[in-house]
Amino acid sequence: MPAPTLTAADYAQGLAAGQRGVLARAITLVESTLPAHQALAQQVLQTVLPRTGGALRLGITGVPGVGKSTFIEALGLYLVEKLGKKLAVLAVDPSSPRGGGSILGDKTRMPQLTAHPRAFIRPSPASGSLGGVARATREALLLCEAAGYDVIFVETVGVGQSEVAVHGMVDFFLLLMLAGAGDELQGVKRGIMEMADALLITKADHGNEKAARRAARDYEGALHLFPPAASGWAVPVRTCSALSGAGLPEAWEVIEQYAAHTQASGYWQHRRAQQQLQWLEEAVRQALESQFYGRAGVQSALPSVRQAVAAGQLTPWAAAEQLLAH
Amino acid sequence: MPAPTLTAADYAQGLAAGQRGVLARAITLVESTLPAHQALAQQVLQTVLPRTGGALRLGITGVPGVGKSTFIEALGLYLVEKLGKKLAVLAVDPSSPRGGGSILGDKTRMPQLTAHPRAFIRPSPASGSLGGVARATREALLLCEAAGYDVIFVETVGVGQSEVAVHGMVDFFLLLMLAGAGDELQGVKRGIMEMADALLITKADHGNEKAARRAARDYEGALHLFPPAASGWAVPVRTCSALSGAGLPEAWEVIEQYAAHTQASGYWQHRRAQQQLQWLEEAVRQALESQFYGRAGVQSALPSVRQAVAAGQLTPWAAAEQLLAH
Repeated sequence: MPAPTLTAADYAQGLAAGQRGVLARAITLVESTLPAHQALAQQVLQTVLPRTGGALRLGITGVPGVGKSTFIEALGLYLVEKLGKKLAVLAVDPSSPRGGGSILGDKTRMPQLTAHPRAFIRPSPASGSLGGVARATREALLLCEAAGYDVIFVETVGVGQSEVAVHGMVDFFLLLMLAGAGDELQGVKRGIMEMADALLITKADHGNEKAARRAARDYEGALHLFPPAASGWAVPVRTCSALSGAGLPEAWEVIEQYAAHTQASGYWQHRRAQQQLQWLEEAVRQALESQFYGRAGVQSALPSVRQAVAAGQLTPWAAAEQLLAH
Repeated sequence: MPAPTLTAADYAQGLAAGQRGVLARAITLVESTLPAHQALAQQVLQTVLPRTGGALRLGITGVPGVGKSTFIEALGLYLVEKLGKKLAVLAVDPSSPRGGGSILGDKTRMPQLTAHPRAFIRPSPASGSLGGVARATREALLLCEAAGYDVIFVETVGVGQSEVAVHGMVDFFLLLMLAGAGDELQGVKRGIMEMADALLITKADHGNEKAARRAARDYEGALHLFPPAASGWAVPVRTCSALSGAGLPEAWEVIEQYAAHTQASGYWQHRRAQQQLQWLEEAVRQALESQFYGRAGVQSALPSVRQAVAAGQLTPWAAAEQLLAH
C-alpha cells in the first residue's frame, strides 16, 4: 500500500475530478486499519459527503455457479455502452483473502468491463470481520459516488451473512438463481429470498429457455403467497441470458421502475435515511463491543463462560453479569 | 405486586413442588425492574437451572383474526386432557398494557384451559422494551420448566419484531394462517414465514375445508421452492379446526416428528446451545447499550446527531465518534 501522502483536500479534489487513481487510493485508505489512515479517511468522507448519494445502489447476490460474473459483465457493459452510465462494482466477501485465489478479487473474470473507461471494479476488502469488511465497502461506495459513478453494484456470494450487510447499503437487492432439475435452491440461504426486490433466473439460453421461464412463473406464483415488502413493491421474477444479452434491458427496466415507484412514494428516501441510522447504531455497537470484548479480563473469562452457558450450567444473564464485572 | 418475602431457596422448593402460586410470584419477580428483585430473581434462576430444559418449547404466532386463542385453547386441552401433559402458556407482546384491554392479557379468552389444573396461563409482561419483555418471558419459561411443565407455548402477535425474539427462545415455531379470498397474508410480516417450522391453516370448518386444503397445497408447493431450513426439515403445511378439533392431533404429531428428527440429528441440542449463547451476547449488548445511551451527554447529543446522519450531513462513523467521545 502506498503511503497516503495526499491531504483530505487532495483526495476530495481528485475524486471531484473523477480521477480513478485517487479513487483507488482513497478506497485503500478506508480499508486501512492504521489509526492515522482511519482519521484521514474520515476527514475525506466528511469532506465529500455532500457529493454522495446520487447513485443507484444495486446489490447483486447468487451462489457460485449462477453465472454472477458473466451477468455483471454483461449488464455492466449494457449500462456503460448503451446507456452511457458510469459504473462501479464493489464486493462484500469477508472470506476472500487479499490477492489471488478469491473469486471476487479476480478482475480477469470481467475482462471487458475491467478495461472499460467508464467502469471501475474493486474486489472485496481483505478478509476480516464482516462488520469491518461491510463498513469499508460502504465507505468505498460513498467514495465512488463522490467520484461521479452513477450506478454502483455491490456483489456478494449468496450463502452467508454478508447479504444482510449488503441489503443494508443498497437501494435494490437482486437475487440471481438457476433453473432446472431441482437445483433451484443450490445453497441459497434461507432468509435471502425475503430480502430480494427481484429474482432473475440466469442462463436462459442453450435450450434452457423454457425451463427458465417455467421456474420464473413458479417463483412469481410462490412469491405472491408471501407477505408483501415494506415498499409495497411486488417482487418480479424475470429470466435473462448473459451470453445472448436477452432479458438484460428488461431486468434494468425493472430496477428503474422500482426507483421511480419508490421515489414517488417516498420509500426510497425513507430507506436511505433508515440505512444511515442503522449504520450509526452499528458503528456505536461495534465500538462498544470491540472495546468490551477486547479487555484482557473478558477475553480470558469468555471461553469458560460461553461453555457454561451453552451447557446450561449458567444462565445467560448471570454470565453477562460476570463478564460485565471485568 | 406482593413483596418478595420468599428466599431463593423458598422459591426453588415451591417450584420443585409444582406450586402454582410460587410460580406466579417467581414470574412477577423476574418481571420486576427493582434491583433487589432482579438480584433475587437471578439467584432463583441459577438455583433452578439444573431442573430446566426439559420442556418442548413451542412458539405460536398469527395475526389477530386467525383464531389464535381458540386454537391455543383447543390444542392445549388436547395436550392436557388426552396426552396428560402439563402446559404453560406465555406471551411476548411488548405493546400490551398491563391489565385490561390487551388481547394477550385477557385470560377469559381461554376459559377452559385457564381453569384446568394442569395448565398455567400467564399474559405478556407489561409493556416495555422488546428486549426487556423478551428477557422476562424467557426467564418465565425457565421457571415453568423448573415447576414441571413439559410443554410451553410462547404466543406472539405475528405483526412485529416480537417473532424474532420468540423464535430465539423456542424449539419449534408454528405460524397460523387463514385461507380464502386473497386474505392469506392479512398483515403477516415479511420474514416471519421464513422462520416457521410449520404452517397451519386455521378455521377449516363451516364449509371452509376445501379452501383451507387448497391454501395448504399452495403454500406447501411454494415453500418447496424456497431454501431449506438449517435443520434440514421440510416445512409442512396442515389444516385444522379448533371448533371441531379436526387436525389438532395431526398438528401435534408434526411437532413431535420434528422433535424426534432433530433430536436424532443433534440439531435440537445445537439450536438450544446457540440460543443460550445468543442470549448471552444479547444480555451483554443490552447492558453496554443501555449504559451508553443512558449517559446524559449522549442523550442530549443524540437527537441532533441522528438528524444530521439521516439527512446525509454527517457520516455515521463520524457521528458515532462524536457520541463515543461523551
